[in-house]
Amino acid sequence: MSKLKMPSGELRVATAGIDLIDEALISQQVIPTSTHWRPPSEPGLASILSNIALSSAVRVANQAALERLTSARPHLIGITTALEAVGLETGCFLHAGPPIQWQNTSGPLRGALIGAALLEGVADSPEDAMGKFERGEFHMEPCHHRGAVGPMAGVVSSSMPMSIIEDSVTGRRAYCTLNEGLGKVLRYGAYSTEVLERLRWIEKVLAPVLHETIYASEPIDLYAMVGEALQMGDECHNRNRAGTSLFLRAIGPLLIESKHASSTVAECFRFITGNDHFFLNLMMPAAKVAADAARNIPGSTMIVAMARNGTEFGIQLSGTGDEWFTGPCGVPQGLLFPGFTAEDANPDIGDSTITETVGVGGFAMASAPAIVKFVGGTSDLALDSSRRMYDITIGEHPLFRLPALDFRGTPVGIDAALVVRRNQLPVVNTGIAGREAGVGQVGAGLVDPPVKCFVDAVARFAELNKTLIQSA
Amino acid sequence: MSKLKMPSGELRVATAGIDLIDEALISQQVIPTSTHWRPPSEPGLASILSNIALSSAVRVANQAALERLTSARPHLIGITTALEAVGLETGCFLHAGPPIQWQNTSGPLRGALIGAALLEGVADSPEDAMGKFERGEFHMEPCHHRGAVGPMAGVVSSSMPMSIIEDSVTGRRAYCTLNEGLGKVLRYGAYSTEVLERLRWIEKVLAPVLHETIYASEPIDLYAMVGEALQMGDECHNRNRAGTSLFLRAIGPLLIESKHASSTVAECFRFITGNDHFFLNLMMPAAKVAADAARNIPGSTMIVAMARNGTEFGIQLSGTGDEWFTGPCGVPQGLLFPGFTAEDANPDIGDSTITETVGVGGFAMASAPAIVKFVGGTSDLALDSSRRMYDITIGEHPLFRLPALDFRGTPVGIDAALVVRRNQLPVVNTGIAGREAGVGQVGAGLVDPPVKCFVDAVARFAELNKTLIQSA
Repeated sequence: MSKLKMPSGELRVATAGIDLIDEALISQQVIPTSTHWRPPSEPGLASILSNIALSSAVRVANQAALERLTSARPHLIGITTALEAVGLETGCFLHAGPPIQWQNTSGPLRGALIGAALLEGVADSPEDAMGKFERGEFHMEPCHHRGAVGPMAGVVSSSMPMSIIEDSVTGRRAYCTLNEGLGKVLRYGAYSTEVLERLRWIEKVLAPVLHETIYASEPIDLYAMVGEALQMGDECHNRNRAGTSLFLRAIGPLLIESKHASSTVAECFRFITGNDHFFLNLMMPAAKVAADAARNIPGSTMIVAMARNGTEFGIQLSGTGDEWFTGPCGVPQGLLFPGFTAEDANPDIGDSTITETVGVGGFAMASAPAIVKFVGGTSDLALDSSRRMYDITIGEHPLFRLPALDFRGTPVGIDAALVVRRNQLPVVNTGIAGREAGVGQVGAGLVDPPVKCFVDAVARFAELNKTLIQSA
Repeated sequence: MSKLKMPSGELRVATAGIDLIDEALISQQVIPTSTHWRPPSEPGLASILSNIALSSAVRVANQAALERLTSARPHLIGITTALEAVGLETGCFLHAGPPIQWQNTSGPLRGALIGAALLEGVADSPEDAMGKFERGEFHMEPCHHRGAVGPMAGVVSSSMPMSIIEDSVTGRRAYCTLNEGLGKVLRYGAYSTEVLERLRWIEKVLAPVLHETIYASEPIDLYAMVGEALQMGDECHNRNRAGTSLFLRAIGPLLIESKHASSTVAECFRFITGNDHFFLNLMMPAAKVAADAARNIPGSTMIVAMARNGTEFGIQLSGTGDEWFTGPCGVPQGLLFPGFTAEDANPDIGDSTITETVGVGGFAMASAPAIVKFVGGTSDLALDSSRRMYDITIGEHPLFRLPALDFRGTPVGIDAALVVRRNQLPVVNTGIAGREAGVGQVGAGLVDPPVKCFVDAVARFAELNKTLIQSA
């Protein structure tokens, strides 16, 4: 054994892993350079993860997937019905998240399905609707399977208006309903008369006015608005005040020139300006069309969908086709509205995690310190949330930049293998739905996805790509 | 001499002043708690500054001034002409900054005065206008003397439309012209046919449409918009994208319901949405009405006006009446538009420093990291600019909050005595005008006010308040 030499000169220490070592060093006046390393989530996958990390084929595939994800330029080109948009017949219902059976649905999804059945006139009462869903008389399918996305319950039925988002690069399209506003709304599982009347007004009044306005306009460049909104305090998932403002600025002159009665058009403007989340339902399909462009690249471990049905959280990888990998939904932690307690909160629900999938939402939290107030956090937590996401992403977004991080591109392209290897879950911002059908929104906050879905996805990827990753 | 004892236990050091000491400590692994102390700007005033600092009468007066400054609630209530608003007759011209003679005016102020004389039809040509100004045939007066403010050259003539801003707390009013847009515009000293035609369009088309729209509305709460804009990346002086967006959201429905032809109203909406600084000309008189509420409080060293005429930078204190204290204007450092060099930049000009006077602009830079990009700075510089301003201000604004500083109120109520004692100048954001008359805007950046005006103001305050500060 050679004699131990003490270091001479200035002591510089790099650390990896638990904070204890950092703290011990700092107490001795040595400031370490620390990294975020943690042991993998699943020790059993260690050699697989190592092979994936070393595989140049995976690296090339992930770069290709990222390139497609970030080069999309989604534009709003019009409004149509779900029947026209995605061929949704009466008696068929889309919902958020991975596939689910009626028996397993949580309160808010159940409430929204009941409301949609009443809206379409295929049920006479909530009890009638429940009976028909139970007996399998209605068809249920994820939004994601029809090129669509839906916030919270994400329920879509045949007559509902949907925005048409077209990627000008690929010509691909995606769809989403129009945002209904806050409080008691279908997407949070409320289905009272007031809720259904608002949905009918959206169909009969708002949708035609908006469609003609958008049709009279050049296609509306949504990613330009997202890029700008990130400079204006939005993270484009749980805060959309700037996005909604920019959208209203874009369509304002066209609304003024609308052929509809000015009192009707003013009512539409007031509806949109009264709801700072209006832009979320435009951003989500914009994100969907970008994520879909990155699907089906063999050898890619990049996530192309993350979605929750209120019971299970599911993800899809570019390199594993249409297969869903799922785990149980967590309950979001955050700010509950007055009169509600943690008991009232439903597990995580909605397709809105498509925003995190394309590099905004929780990943862009550094742009929106107002969001961390929900969880009693500080502006440092906002910065740190974004910074940690660079550890699990493939690159930085060329259009979406974070002013508070000196205009660095947002972390984008979640690599499921990195999530497991670095044991670092994606940060998700979300609204919180009431647990009971019919209650509506009870708060907003942050939630951790289940580790299981990432572990399962990586295991399946490795199984499908044995040759590819063993040749590394 | 007693024996020197070495400290035992953990070493904790507090430092004040130059960075050298901090650096020496850090190199020895001791992290000091450092303060911003610097020696006073004017050693001759040391005992006066000390007396002012110790005077409870000054402290009470400054608290009263701050209370008035921060409790104003300015509302936009309509548009009128300069003749109606401030009694400005033909042949009379208002300008930015402290009083100035024609002979001493810089290019952009000269250009704007020429343009206004041509607009009013009291001169046939630029030469004719210059001759008449030179011979004293026209009356020139600061905007501030008529309860008004003007960005850049700040030139106002009789027929120009002005917004009417009313403080709902005191009933006091202030006025400002409507923002003309970017590029070649009167306020930057341009006076070509295009500039004058736009001013005529503003008078004949925009002003009547806006007046009727605002008149049909509840008074528009501008400070609510400022508070919100600070959460959306504006600092409300050099960046007004959010403010302009929020203003358009507020008036959008009323514009749609306007009785004017929809093509005309749409043209007005397009004009406003095409100019992200439109809100600046509403924020400035809002700030003016708040600052005016804090005037004439005996014993207060708080600044109630900071303004530049392109030659001199001037300030007024609450406790020294209408007297101006001036020093030479600096040349702003920042980003110059393509084709211009530092040679083309005019010294600092405009009343827009009224924004810093009420706690936004440079003081709210932490909200707008995009601004520091003009000077090649980082987001840390943005945070630090706001932080340093707490050293020279009397309090924190109850309505204006900085998300990046965990929603701390902006530093507000500049104490001229603190500026001199702490040798810390107010941070000023500004547009940069071309030096030659007729050129227009050439850039945007930051500028230091001259120390002299603060030193002179404090000396004069001390002279007027001998008894007050000696009884300390």
